[in-house]
Amino acid sequence: MSLTTPLPILSGERFRVVYRIQGDDENRVRRVARGIALEQTVELPDELVPTGVIADQIVGQIEEVVPTVDSFDVTISYAVECAGTGLTQLLNVIFGNTSMQPGIQVRRLDLPESITRTFKGPRFGSAGLRERLNVHDRPLLATALKPMGMNATDLADRAYAFALGGIDLIKDDHGLANQVFCPFEERTARCAEAVARANRETGLNCLYAPNITAPVDEILDRARFAKAAGAGALEISYGLTGYDTLRMLAADDSLALPILAHPALSGSFVSTSGSGMATAVTFGQLVRLAGGDVSVFVSYGGRFPYTEADCLGVIEGCTVEMGALKPIMAAPGGGMTLARMPELLAFYPFDTAFLVAGGLYSGDDLTANARAFASVVSARKKG
Amino acid sequence: MSLTTPLPILSGERFRVVYRIQGDDENRVRRVARGIALEQTVELPDELVPTGVIADQIVGQIEEVVPTVDSFDVTISYAVECAGTGLTQLLNVIFGNTSMQPGIQVRRLDLPESITRTFKGPRFGSAGLRERLNVHDRPLLATALKPMGMNATDLADRAYAFALGGIDLIKDDHGLANQVFCPFEERTARCAEAVARANRETGLNCLYAPNITAPVDEILDRARFAKAAGAGALEISYGLTGYDTLRMLAADDSLALPILAHPALSGSFVSTSGSGMATAVTFGQLVRLAGGDVSVFVSYGGRFPYTEADCLGVIEGCTVEMGALKPIMAAPGGGMTLARMPELLAFYPFDTAFLVAGGLYSGDDLTANARAFASVVSARKKG
Repeated sequence: MSLTTPLPILSGERFRVVYRIQGDDENRVRRVARGIALEQTVELPDELVPTGVIADQIVGQIEEVVPTVDSFDVTISYAVECAGTGLTQLLNVIFGNTSMQPGIQVRRLDLPESITRTFKGPRFGSAGLRERLNVHDRPLLATALKPMGMNATDLADRAYAFALGGIDLIKDDHGLANQVFCPFEERTARCAEAVARANRETGLNCLYAPNITAPVDEILDRARFAKAAGAGALEISYGLTGYDTLRMLAADDSLALPILAHPALSGSFVSTSGSGMATAVTFGQLVRLAGGDVSVFVSYGGRFPYTEADCLGVIEGCTVEMGALKPIMAAPGGGMTLARMPELLAFYPFDTAFLVAGGLYSGDDLTANARAFASVVSARKKG
Repeated sequence: MSLTTPLPILSGERFRVVYRIQGDDENRVRRVARGIALEQTVELPDELVPTGVIADQIVGQIEEVVPTVDSFDVTISYAVECAGTGLTQLLNVIFGNTSMQPGIQVRRLDLPESITRTFKGPRFGSAGLRERLNVHDRPLLATALKPMGMNATDLADRAYAFALGGIDLIKDDHGLANQVFCPFEERTARCAEAVARANRETGLNCLYAPNITAPVDEILDRARFAKAAGAGALEISYGLTGYDTLRMLAADDSLALPILAHPALSGSFVSTSGSGMATAVTFGQLVRLAGGDVSVFVSYGGRFPYTEADCLGVIEGCTVEMGALKPIMAAPGGGMTLARMPELLAFYPFDTAFLVAGGLYSGDDLTANARAFASVVSARKKG
């Protein structure tokens, strides 16, 4: 193969990805790992890789192979320059083609400052969100406006009732988009007004987060409309838009509102069969890198089959050291009830936003339901 | 629950999604299906769904339950208005939260004209691509420039050699982004020039497709640069950017270049454990809805474990009737070799773009390799 010598300018700095590779044969696992190291970089078999810098530094390097139950955790490092600039190519080096291989799961990212500092990351994080709410002595209370099909006036009534009852974060159900029966602008304006009215009565700082998930070239306009209408936060489903659209939204200094990141469509990344990406990465580290302040996910014990370990993974991804990127608030939801709150309060850390939605809709008095929710959560003290 | 009557304006028209639900107990499967119908719309349990229009029309409806081996294919219909406007919310209704449930796989989309006509879809499709190439009597020949780490000058030499040998579509390896060792603009300009030079010599119309996958707010600029530099096509990894960014790119009338859609990071949607979305949807129908003209995917028998049925699924998704959306070209790749071409030519339809990349890199004479590839593919006639 005719080749002139390439002259990459490489710093020698590398980032690391931990892959869990199914199997109990270490030799086979090492071959699979070498396959990943090639696939994620040069996409050539060993015998066709040009010698020199490409073979020595561009191709991923196996750093560590640690046995676990029925699998091995293999750490592969890549030159930071391979990730180029931006989240899309970083994601590509982490898992692009290897996402098509079963039995390989991304467990953890270890990114040096030279990469993390190129991301603004969460503008508020857990601490900034608490400041904005002025809530420091208990976990946060979150709920969702629903159902799809209800008009904006009725949804705003619900928002008012919940805010009056002391909820901190009221988000649109992520299925509320811009439907003819409940247009985005009308809903956002009415619900923001309703929450502001309740805040004047309670003296609290409840934040309303309209769902601005939309065609990618309309998202910033929706966000600007929401801010102008008085929304205190924004909700976006990064699985529907791509992580990088969340990054674009969070980086916009003209918006500067806390962002609730919803996992719709991301579930396919989190396979129960040892493929895809672990919850710590999908709902934790990547949301944080992209700039989400609150990461909504589905809790164990609800109507989704996630395990306690899956949920602890989210917490870890939201809080593990990642350079200057702030820790963010995990928001477990998906079939949570008031009856389960004592157990959930004991399980999750203090800096959690408990998202009880359907569980607050029974009976006629949403404000009373919200107050009951607030009462049980207030029992949980720091530490 | 206090509720005023909502007044949705619904046409009565519905779109359909076929879900494959694992299990052999039809009663359980029907309960799971009812759960999907609720989850994807109102996100409330049955007892909390407001009666009237919401219960009758907004909630998904089970249309058909057909047993398959070890599972059931359940068709659920949704009011077209639930999908609002745009691809993000359509994806959300199809699979948003249900993506987090294992054992449920999206098999097929059946979208009425009232939805498909809101998408421009593929600008060229298979027929338009053939027109542009002026190739009508054989399948198409595609390859990729690699490896990551090589400089732009050397990659351009490779592009020239391949184009001289008669390749129709030369794309960047999808890992070539905007790295310091091979900046996007230099690479695009040099490779486009090299392919144009070869075309002048051969009289052919080889298209070079630079990878414009990038931060979402830079993609259109990269596409414009590529077009101005003479690139004949564009490559984007929709799994990295989100499907809707592909849609935005394809809809831009100022670009109007054929688009190769690469599946990087999308593999996690295609689970081998009966979750996620089928290949027909991930690599076929959704790419087409978003406007890709060529859908790159990994073939059976290479270095990825996709089956023949998975691959036939892609073909089906690329060609099945979808209103006015043009059929597109499937491009199997991922470990294909010249030695396997006779088998692959017999397996895949005439309108296929065979993507042999690493398989053309052995030895010193890339042009000779390309000619050998062209020779074997030319044997395949229509029908």
